[in-house]
Amino acid sequence: MNVQPKAGSIVPETVTTGPLTGSRKVYQTIEGHPDIHVPFREIALSDPKEEAVRVYDASGPYTQTDIAIDLSKGLPRIRQPWLARRANLETYTGRAVQPEDNGGVSPDKLVPPCPAVTSPLRGGEGHVTQYEFARAGIVTEEMIYVAHRENLGRAKMLDGAQDKLDDGESFGAEIPAFVTPEFVRDEIARGRAIIPANINHPEVEPMIIGRNFLVKVNANIGNSAVTSSVAEEVEKLVWSIRWGGDTVMDLSTGRNIHNIRDWIMRNSPVPIGTVPIYQALEKVDGDPVKLTWEVFRDTLIEQAEQGVDYFTIHAGVRLAYVPLTAKRVTGIVSRGGSIMARWCLAHHKESFLYDHFDDICDIMRKYDVSFSLGDGLRPGSIADANDRAQFAELETLGELTKRAWAKGCQVMIEGPGHVPMHKIKINMEKQLKECHEAPFYTLGPLTTDIAPGYDHITSGIGAAMIGWFGTAMLCYVTPKEHLGLPDRDDVKVGVITYRIAAHAADLAKGHPAAQLRDDALSRARFDFRWEDQFNLGLDPDTARAYHDETLPKDAHKVAHFCSMCGPKFCSMKISQDLRVEAAEIAAREAGMQEKSAEFLDQGGELYVRS
Amino acid sequence: MNVQPKAGSIVPETVTTGPLTGSRKVYQTIEGHPDIHVPFREIALSDPKEEAVRVYDASGPYTQTDIAIDLSKGLPRIRQPWLARRANLETYTGRAVQPEDNGGVSPDKLVPPCPAVTSPLRGGEGHVTQYEFARAGIVTEEMIYVAHRENLGRAKMLDGAQDKLDDGESFGAEIPAFVTPEFVRDEIARGRAIIPANINHPEVEPMIIGRNFLVKVNANIGNSAVTSSVAEEVEKLVWSIRWGGDTVMDLSTGRNIHNIRDWIMRNSPVPIGTVPIYQALEKVDGDPVKLTWEVFRDTLIEQAEQGVDYFTIHAGVRLAYVPLTAKRVTGIVSRGGSIMARWCLAHHKESFLYDHFDDICDIMRKYDVSFSLGDGLRPGSIADANDRAQFAELETLGELTKRAWAKGCQVMIEGPGHVPMHKIKINMEKQLKECHEAPFYTLGPLTTDIAPGYDHITSGIGAAMIGWFGTAMLCYVTPKEHLGLPDRDDVKVGVITYRIAAHAADLAKGHPAAQLRDDALSRARFDFRWEDQFNLGLDPDTARAYHDETLPKDAHKVAHFCSMCGPKFCSMKISQDLRVEAAEIAAREAGMQEKSAEFLDQGGELYVRS
Repeated sequence: MNVQPKAGSIVPETVTTGPLTGSRKVYQTIEGHPDIHVPFREIALSDPKEEAVRVYDASGPYTQTDIAIDLSKGLPRIRQPWLARRANLETYTGRAVQPEDNGGVSPDKLVPPCPAVTSPLRGGEGHVTQYEFARAGIVTEEMIYVAHRENLGRAKMLDGAQDKLDDGESFGAEIPAFVTPEFVRDEIARGRAIIPANINHPEVEPMIIGRNFLVKVNANIGNSAVTSSVAEEVEKLVWSIRWGGDTVMDLSTGRNIHNIRDWIMRNSPVPIGTVPIYQALEKVDGDPVKLTWEVFRDTLIEQAEQGVDYFTIHAGVRLAYVPLTAKRVTGIVSRGGSIMARWCLAHHKESFLYDHFDDICDIMRKYDVSFSLGDGLRPGSIADANDRAQFAELETLGELTKRAWAKGCQVMIEGPGHVPMHKIKINMEKQLKECHEAPFYTLGPLTTDIAPGYDHITSGIGAAMIGWFGTAMLCYVTPKEHLGLPDRDDVKVGVITYRIAAHAADLAKGHPAAQLRDDALSRARFDFRWEDQFNLGLDPDTARAYHDETLPKDAHKVAHFCSMCGPKFCSMKISQDLRVEAAEIAAREAGMQEKSAEFLDQGGELYVRS
Repeated sequence: MNVQPKAGSIVPETVTTGPLTGSRKVYQTIEGHPDIHVPFREIALSDPKEEAVRVYDASGPYTQTDIAIDLSKGLPRIRQPWLARRANLETYTGRAVQPEDNGGVSPDKLVPPCPAVTSPLRGGEGHVTQYEFARAGIVTEEMIYVAHRENLGRAKMLDGAQDKLDDGESFGAEIPAFVTPEFVRDEIARGRAIIPANINHPEVEPMIIGRNFLVKVNANIGNSAVTSSVAEEVEKLVWSIRWGGDTVMDLSTGRNIHNIRDWIMRNSPVPIGTVPIYQALEKVDGDPVKLTWEVFRDTLIEQAEQGVDYFTIHAGVRLAYVPLTAKRVTGIVSRGGSIMARWCLAHHKESFLYDHFDDICDIMRKYDVSFSLGDGLRPGSIADANDRAQFAELETLGELTKRAWAKGCQVMIEGPGHVPMHKIKINMEKQLKECHEAPFYTLGPLTTDIAPGYDHITSGIGAAMIGWFGTAMLCYVTPKEHLGLPDRDDVKVGVITYRIAAHAADLAKGHPAAQLRDDALSRARFDFRWEDQFNLGLDPDTARAYHDETLPKDAHKVAHFCSMCGPKFCSMKISQDLRVEAAEIAAREAGMQEKSAEFLDQGGELYVRS
């Protein structure tokens, strides 16, 4: 999917930097680990009685104050000291870039290589992947990092509101009151969570995807057919994570795909996922029938050396399943799925992804690229939801999960798609069962087909529900889904819609500290601290702009009402007055009882208030 | 809540008329009932193999082709012949309009009375309300009307796809395969559904609210402080129902409130609800403490004579419950609730709404105004969800439901509010139990507090879920909730978000024919019938505009791809090619088998395709 600037906007020369309104970036240092600094965003509040609120922050260094970003240098390589301590990683001369890697672009249109690129690393014997470390009982720096990142607010909750811990329905998830590095290790060892972090992506700020952690959001980006500026491409990434994307999938096709990916990797603080079959297809002139294992294998190595953190691999689209889609209303709607189905049918052969799955594992393990096992046969309409084709593939993904684990790889599983509400839960239950609790990563699901232009909402409903049921990461859908290219506004709306879904899921699962932010915002709302209310929201700028459309003056930012109801009808105002009044009455009555007591002492009668 | 035109827009002189793009209005005539004409919207499709798709349509005559609307004459009084046959209804000289009814507006700013207003009707002995008719076993014209309206598509489903009937989870609702007028009567008699239709609102196109019918959507409007045009006020109504509002609540405050309501009533084809305490408060200078039963009673009669179809009555906010809200994060957030709480506390008396509940019933029965028993103590934050204050009031609403039924009145129950996902279902279950299955009518609920500016989405998630669980009508929330006045765009987005929620709920409940529209749209999508896809959607204009942002040419409207992926990567295109290819292979193989058979007959060997 491509992202394009709004019609008429100027192609950016630089990327968006600086803190969100009302926030500042903070880094938590970890005792005993001087080279681990865990990022958070802190929202300052105007009421001195209120503590600043810390929130999870995936936006990277871009939201630091006065940050000087140099795209050609790339971001700080925070993992480099950790990786340097791992003796079995070797630097080597990587695969040479081929003209077809950049779509055979003419020299005058070639995007220059990113100067920050260095020779790649690869793993040898011993432990390379987080899964291998975890199975061996070893806690990595990445595990420590995510434990602290996930623990946000938990200490406070344990301190003050123990009862909140039991408030939720997690459908069998085992969310701890407190996250320890050992808990993280155990979850990874059991295959229930992954830390997507290629050893060639030292810039990544580690994050974890698993049912017992905060629900995450993925945003898709991709370069447009004609690219005029590297900054424009990196800006898509920066913009997505600014609003809360936890990972970003680069679904680029076309020219300069390799060199642009280098610029993205070197400047991304979040894990980057790709669908390697897209680039492989470009290398065979867009004809699925011409795809070969060799071209695909070469593309895997190319992208693994660049540092891609997870690959979508559609190895579950087996030849025998293709006919199961024949009577569907919308056939095969996954691009990777349809490419592989066409290949299988044209050659009347089993998928080379399935046949070479062990070889794929061997490559991905060497770089710790995580699997995102693709759902190539996901339903593209309500009519096709939960059909045999979809579930047959899911069962194969379960088989492949075990094979990938046996090879030492980290695995998550992709899921649908278009599913009506009453068929969502069975997707989660079947995925947990068939795929042995490997993390689920779903697109929506969309709960109806009848609202093109509003599919962020049709799918946001399904995403919140499946997130609650146990999905670990939600792939966003923008308002342009099914219709065209999302622009900046669409990307922002898509990410924020999915942050709502993820947070609603965290609340419902009973995440120990999720409600802290809701409570802080609600207190601000009740106290008419307008600026605090805006800044605590997911999108302070839009909230402020909406408020200012009708009450623009600064004085209204402290007004004890808004334009919805006006001062006379403000229930919060009346409710506040009422609280003051009730307190006065109580005080008066207490005083009266005192007086009454005196009166009684003096032999009088008790005054009783009617 | 007020609605205002976008900044800079011109105040409309007329209201929006004409069909939605790609649609036409149709009226179904009912055999044996020459004065019943049931409205639908029909979407024509470009593929001659595809039947036109009929959809439920609440937009009234405004979406007829070439309609001439004259606001001063009002809409056709379609119920007049039905009402004329009811001998116990008498025309009388209504209450004279008082200056305070219009907020004491000065004569030069007075909105002129609507010329279409006539003398009111009131009921005497015998059956007046739909509830009374239903209990007596009598099927009214309104019941016949809604039966046919709700039956949309069911005959087709019964005909062609019997298996769809079992596909859904309705949580104990009893949705019939086919809706008969007798079924409607029975549901109303059991108190499980209402037809809000004041005998003084002959213009209303009857609709039904109940768990075993299509989920409905309410939109709120209200006049702004300074009103320059009656058309502008009616336009808010027309605009809301154009996009799918099934009922509209007029939450006006301020000047001209009475006269504007006359214009709205005479031009509304949907039931209009109000909160009479708002106008009563205006009459006592905005001071809740000065409210009296007499002022309130007079306001009820005033509005009942005008034809308001349902009243929100906050009679469940009892004195004893007010202290239960003391420790809440957001106190009392219902305007009606806070007004009554203040009155109770100031006078230290039981609510006059509770004390005079039987008197209220007697008034409402005479005009068949339905009760919408208000949830004055609904939670205004995640922290306050499902607390004792909320549930204590709900229990009282259950008691009042029985009392209202005993008086012959129709009743629905209002619900929250702000509720995290895992606490939504208990709301529905408790409401069904405590309120004896009277229809539930909820505001959202909002599933998190952290997204001001996006509360149509935080609440759309909750609305879809509670609709699925059994809520009969969903009150919309716009993006401006908590922040300011919704404009036209906000109203449209709010209504469409809630139509998504209602339809997703219908699908999940297993409504027999709900999926017809999804399937038609998905077929159009798979066939690249772009215009059909746009027109089958909830908002054809936005879908078309989004598509055209990147592929504006007419040729692209028949292109077998869109700009999201381009022609090379279109999964639907590949999937279609694949289907053709598979058919060719099948045909070839069939031919080969024939040839092989000949070959075998001639003593040769069988050719087996690898």
